[in-house]
Amino acid sequence: MPTVNPPRGMRDFLPADKARRERVLSVIRERYRAHGFDEIETPVMEEYGRLHAGIGGDNEKLAYNVLARGLDADGIRAAADDPAALTDLGLRYDLTVPLARFYASHRAELPSVFRAIQIAPVWRAERPQKGRYRQFVQCDIDIIGDATARAEAELMTASLDALDALGLTGGSVRINDRRVLDAMLAAFGFAESERPGVLITIDKLDKLGPVGVVAELRERGASTEAADAFASFLQRSPEEDGRFDAEGIRARLPEGVPDEVVAHLVGIGQAVRTARGDAAAPLVFDPFLVRGMGYYTGTIFELAHPSVSYSLGGGGRYDGMIGRFLGTDVPAVGFSLGFERLVDLLTDDAAQGTGAVVLVHDRDVPLPELLAAKARLVAGGARVRLEQRPKNVKAMLERAAADGYTGFVSLRAGEDVSSLETRPLAP
Amino acid sequence: MPTVNPPRGMRDFLPADKARRERVLSVIRERYRAHGFDEIETPVMEEYGRLHAGIGGDNEKLAYNVLARGLDADGIRAAADDPAALTDLGLRYDLTVPLARFYASHRAELPSVFRAIQIAPVWRAERPQKGRYRQFVQCDIDIIGDATARAEAELMTASLDALDALGLTGGSVRINDRRVLDAMLAAFGFAESERPGVLITIDKLDKLGPVGVVAELRERGASTEAADAFASFLQRSPEEDGRFDAEGIRARLPEGVPDEVVAHLVGIGQAVRTARGDAAAPLVFDPFLVRGMGYYTGTIFELAHPSVSYSLGGGGRYDGMIGRFLGTDVPAVGFSLGFERLVDLLTDDAAQGTGAVVLVHDRDVPLPELLAAKARLVAGGARVRLEQRPKNVKAMLERAAADGYTGFVSLRAGEDVSSLETRPLAP
Repeated sequence: MPTVNPPRGMRDFLPADKARRERVLSVIRERYRAHGFDEIETPVMEEYGRLHAGIGGDNEKLAYNVLARGLDADGIRAAADDPAALTDLGLRYDLTVPLARFYASHRAELPSVFRAIQIAPVWRAERPQKGRYRQFVQCDIDIIGDATARAEAELMTASLDALDALGLTGGSVRINDRRVLDAMLAAFGFAESERPGVLITIDKLDKLGPVGVVAELRERGASTEAADAFASFLQRSPEEDGRFDAEGIRARLPEGVPDEVVAHLVGIGQAVRTARGDAAAPLVFDPFLVRGMGYYTGTIFELAHPSVSYSLGGGGRYDGMIGRFLGTDVPAVGFSLGFERLVDLLTDDAAQGTGAVVLVHDRDVPLPELLAAKARLVAGGARVRLEQRPKNVKAMLERAAADGYTGFVSLRAGEDVSSLETRPLAP
Repeated sequence: MPTVNPPRGMRDFLPADKARRERVLSVIRERYRAHGFDEIETPVMEEYGRLHAGIGGDNEKLAYNVLARGLDADGIRAAADDPAALTDLGLRYDLTVPLARFYASHRAELPSVFRAIQIAPVWRAERPQKGRYRQFVQCDIDIIGDATARAEAELMTASLDALDALGLTGGSVRINDRRVLDAMLAAFGFAESERPGVLITIDKLDKLGPVGVVAELRERGASTEAADAFASFLQRSPEEDGRFDAEGIRARLPEGVPDEVVAHLVGIGQAVRTARGDAAAPLVFDPFLVRGMGYYTGTIFELAHPSVSYSLGGGGRYDGMIGRFLGTDVPAVGFSLGFERLVDLLTDDAAQGTGAVVLVHDRDVPLPELLAAKARLVAGGARVRLEQRPKNVKAMLERAAADGYTGFVSLRAGEDVSSLETRPLAP
């Protein structure tokens, strides 16, 4: 017999966990909807060819593939040299590939600028480790059909608003643009072929520091002159000074970054500032922000909060991808909120137990009276759990308090159910 | 390249569909929580051996199995004679098998009587047909650890209350008990070995009528005397007369049904009637209700509503199953609300658009002003979609109205965003 645990790397959620997850979800969903985003849903499975078309990057290798049905012994033997023949469906590893497929299928039924919410699980067969799971929830918003800075500004305003609503005021956005990185690497003299590897190293700047990054660039055999140029640029790179205007951005860049890229960034910053007020919209330009996914073509950004060192979400513009599904190019930009991180961060369960009552009854209370008492309390707006009075009442009430119950009512046989008194439960 | 459609038998949900599904879900979840049920979640995958342990009945054959990882050509060839070696995980086909596994794993952390809510998708590789999907949502409540009629009464009260909250007042419950069926078949003289087949035929009583059922019993070679006895019982069986007391139930049964079974049924009826008031708790005893799942051991019941001919959910007692996972017997009873049917039934979207506004702006409105106007409306409690003024304003507004938007605001360059007027959108 298999163990009673969930499959390796996957989690059961007990009532308190599940309630917290649902609360966080409903706040995010409500805020995103207020900002004009519409929720959609796709099946958890997509066709194998769709999941392995090169768009998913490294995640494609982590896809769980579903065994094709009706395979007989001959079919299985024939598949020995072509394992893909064993499978025709797979579980999605992200929500972006399904969104692109969805948009291509339903474009005619959607508004010309489509603002999508997707809150749903994805699966990746990663090596299980602390904080990394094989099934986890992603929480994405995307805007398809808008090439202007309006799109990035709407994503950021909505996401900062969602953070506020979760009690995490003071969030900020680090932003860069793939075209900034391209121009920068070209300006330093990195050959086109070595740039993807160079970006992987630059992405470690937070971890390795400037000296470590330059050392790793040299180790991996990057052009010496280019690495030197990058080292000297890092040395003289001015500190972030909070100025998010063309001059401030230019001051932190080498020559060669096109004006339109800087103007796009400045436009986003102005719009978010005006929408949220100067104090609540800190955009920070970070010319060394990379973000891994190969499909990004323009702006890339991450959500930061002073209470944590890791980012709470990230996204970017991927104007090329929808076109690969649709045949015509459509601009697109998306943002993924780090749902699992947010849930871990928000441990305040204060709101859960409002009006939650344990109805403790003796064994000999007739069932009709018992259910009538429960019905009265439920009709009065309470959440009601029945408990037959156990030997250890205290332990039972403590468990109920841990589950978010805030009051209890005692019911003995023959008592009048219309005059029950709710007493507070010590937390 | 694969098609842009979702995999066969699975569905995409567009914004209006998804919003309706989420509304129905949140009403059900809220009502079940009020009645003291706690939501839990398990991974969508379970170990292969768990899913194929004989508990899932016919659904086991419909499980999607997940391709084991790291299989090389030799491993695949070796699996030709043992296809189960290709897979170690599968997608759940119901929520009952995972619940039993969950309970066995977490029993020490749960209340002594555990009332679970599970609202989650399941997968079955069925032949696609109208109204039958390969991915669909199940919506289950279960009570584990209570052998008394209190458990059934709580399930039914909560479920009828959820129906009420969805606007479907007037629901009723058809109820029977597996032990009634056992005693009845024994009384007619059906041999133990033929009873499962006989039950399958009796289950068609609604469709075939009494004459058809007796004919099919004879066709399938059931004992002639037993079939005759059943036929004559069907002929003299009194009409349902609304009496849900011991006398009324006995009047519709042959000899041999134990008193405790009748008392259990009567107890449930009294409790539900007292909790909901006589008029809102019609329990109907149906001695020919069968329900398919082999794991039921006691009461079985279905939820009916006068607006539809099919049932809106069903459940029953399965006292034996948890024990198979746990080693010790634990009583359990569950009810599954027909979520997909409810969603199809509830097409009233009236509540959706409250305070939803389209902000129509000219192309030359500067982005900061535009986002400031949106922020004002969102802060005022509205749901706001931006639309750049198109050539065909009427068509755009019609689409927005179809999406649930109820008002629009027009913004031209240079207008004061603090004095915008919301005008109603013709539905």
